Amino acid sequence: MTGPLRVACLSIGDELLSGRHADLDAPQVARALGEMGLVVDRVEVIPDDEQTIAEAVGRLRGPHAVIVTSGGLGPTLDDVTRHAVARAAGVELVHSEVAWAAVRVWFERRGVEPPASNRRQALIPTGAVILPNSKGTAPGFLLELDPETILAVLPGPPGELVAMLQDELVPRLRSRFGGDLNLMRHEFALFGLPESEFAQLAGDWMSREAIPRMGVSARDGVLAVTLVSREDGAELLVAARAAEFRERFAHWIYSERDEALATTVGRRLLASGTTVTFAESCTGGGIGRSLTSVPGISGVLREGWVTYSDEAKRERLGVPAELLTRHGAVSAEVAGAMALGAARASGADLAISTTGIAGPGGGSQDKPVGLVFLGLALRGEVWTLERRFPPVDRDRIRRYAEQTALFLALAGLEDRLESLGAERAGGFEQLRD
Amino acid sequence: MTGPLRVACLSIGDELLSGRHADLDAPQVARALGEMGLVVDRVEVIPDDEQTIAEAVGRLRGPHAVIVTSGGLGPTLDDVTRHAVARAAGVELVHSEVAWAAVRVWFERRGVEPPASNRRQALIPTGAVILPNSKGTAPGFLLELDPETILAVLPGPPGELVAMLQDELVPRLRSRFGGDLNLMRHEFALFGLPESEFAQLAGDWMSREAIPRMGVSARDGVLAVTLVSREDGAELLVAARAAEFRERFAHWIYSERDEALATTVGRRLLASGTTVTFAESCTGGGIGRSLTSVPGISGVLREGWVTYSDEAKRERLGVPAELLTRHGAVSAEVAGAMALGAARASGADLAISTTGIAGPGGGSQDKPVGLVFLGLALRGEVWTLERRFPPVDRDRIRRYAEQTALFLALAGLEDRLESLGAERAGGFEQLRD
Repeated sequence: MTGPLRVACLSIGDELLSGRHADLDAPQVARALGEMGLVVDRVEVIPDDEQTIAEAVGRLRGPHAVIVTSGGLGPTLDDVTRHAVARAAGVELVHSEVAWAAVRVWFERRGVEPPASNRRQALIPTGAVILPNSKGTAPGFLLELDPETILAVLPGPPGELVAMLQDELVPRLRSRFGGDLNLMRHEFALFGLPESEFAQLAGDWMSREAIPRMGVSARDGVLAVTLVSREDGAELLVAARAAEFRERFAHWIYSERDEALATTVGRRLLASGTTVTFAESCTGGGIGRSLTSVPGISGVLREGWVTYSDEAKRERLGVPAELLTRHGAVSAEVAGAMALGAARASGADLAISTTGIAGPGGGSQDKPVGLVFLGLALRGEVWTLERRFPPVDRDRIRRYAEQTALFLALAGLEDRLESLGAERAGGFEQLRD
Repeated sequence: MTGPLRVACLSIGDELLSGRHADLDAPQVARALGEMGLVVDRVEVIPDDEQTIAEAVGRLRGPHAVIVTSGGLGPTLDDVTRHAVARAAGVELVHSEVAWAAVRVWFERRGVEPPASNRRQALIPTGAVILPNSKGTAPGFLLELDPETILAVLPGPPGELVAMLQDELVPRLRSRFGGDLNLMRHEFALFGLPESEFAQLAGDWMSREAIPRMGVSARDGVLAVTLVSREDGAELLVAARAAEFRERFAHWIYSERDEALATTVGRRLLASGTTVTFAESCTGGGIGRSLTSVPGISGVLREGWVTYSDEAKRERLGVPAELLTRHGAVSAEVAGAMALGAARASGADLAISTTGIAGPGGGSQDKPVGLVFLGLALRGEVWTLERRFPPVDRDRIRRYAEQTALFLALAGLEDRLESLGAERAGGFEQLRD
């Protein structure tokens, strides 16, 4: 057994340090290389400054088998990554006819003469291997810094970076390091289990010394769990732990792929030919947006409603005025009636609904900010679910509500609504057909 | 004139290196401190490893007036930030009764006995000033590393970090550095202008030596532009450039605050009492989700539709079957009819609509992936807009379409539809009332 090969990422660009956007490049590199068993153990975000870049490359080359830079390859004078890495490597920067031809072709395909300033993008350090850019003008390149460290220089725009990672860098690194990587992995995606409770249930599976090693990350109620082993017999070790994991966390697992909840739900709906609709109040369109992120979803989705006012709930979904008056718009009864009304109006097999108080205003003692009711109508049966999300902020409450509605739909499809805490609702005979 | 004070961020946590999520903490720090004139010029993302953290703090203290760490303050043994920074500072880590009282209170308010493991969160380096945590258990702290560098240690969860930044760190740094910061800034938010065209139009305003200095960042068609000066007479310099900027970029400016397009649109709708609705096809709910992200929007928004199928467009919005057959669902005619139909059905003053081909499938020679038509109905008048977005990926096309629809609504409110390239549409007499 050997330790994993280590990778450092350098994300280069003044705009990355303004705080306006997160750095999205390094996570892409970490995922793509992580899948082949290389481990990113350091990311540095630095400005477009030649000396700063050269210093970082020089400092990181020792302990890292691979250094990946992103950004600073544009045609303007403030982009200095090429110059900086050539300086760090101690080699000349020269005009490459091959790189220049690639830049020219990119412009000519668009019927445009390449501007003279773009010649700068054809400057390549001596000895580097050019990586073609299928999505933009700037070629990337690979440069051996020494027998222990290889430097990959990629463009900054995420679309260009991802394409070059997948098409060029990963295949080359795989053929270079393939023999050293003995990696097995298995993924689980869970919904609705707080990370602290997960840690307690997982116990010593989460220890740093555990084999296989378990990694967890949390966002919007979703836990992404990865089991990884590079020991001898990795395949068996991972399969055995995955089987135990599947049993212990059955309530919360929604997929054994690393995918969004909407993707799992969309796939199940399409596979089973179950038609779907939605009626949203507090989520305001978020469920629809998530479901329609799935390509091909039009096969099972015709329409949905955002019914923000009481009047819209009555007129579009047939929610009885009396339910709204007696229980209020934010109630299990209205959530159930919204789902059933949407299912009837659209003729869909399955409908989900949300009604809640997303804040910051509008809360009361009885119905505080964060209180959300979800409804599910599935082939004429109605279920409801109550949730009290932490009243942290409006966006987060809305995202949790949206995800919970999707999980409720999945639980309906998998016939495990009771284990989720959903209650069967009746008394909707008065709804118009 | 002196240079700005420099800040380094250390984002600490194994999970930040998995590539699953971007680091959201450092951008928060960069923005909050940037607003008071401190400049983050380096971010490092490193694992929960004592030696790595201590090395980074030691290396960065020289050139930086402030080092801000986030993460690694949890109660479990893998969180080692406290130990690492005490080691880097060369001071003891001791149990603080003040910190422990704060942790206990947090649990007791929730009716829970504080677990023994959380005592670890009361370990504080000698000489540090405790920063209370209003959103979680882990106290932060401030530690003078030497007369030139102050170290701020903050918790990792973004909600806790942001509260501690705003309530504790910024006020303390302001009172410490206030006299040294002579900063004026002005912000613009633009929509629909590609970054490369912006750069050409801005010319030497964008040079690194320009006074005031201009910063730009781009996302989903939005450009956020900041003018900054710390020279003598900064106020006049920034005001003069802002006046020129306002004139040169009038077509694309939607706000002089750093805010999302939906926020600007929502604010205008509420201020003018203009009621709004929407009919979405390719965006699938994204417009609704954006508009309802604005607190209080229920004052002008009652309902909206996601009409994904032709049938839904006919039944819910009254789009004539003949228009769908003759022009296809993805057409200016149908976009216009959807907007008018939604306005009539809901009685709203203003309606926006989208219909397009988000891909990856469904494109043709005539109607390629990326083709989107947007509709606007405003007090009975109908306008349409055609856009061909780069066929890069489904999500991006949908986000662009959503943002363009919001910009179209704003242009309608500001009576500048023609300058946007929108066309007035007629021939909808056949739509039912």
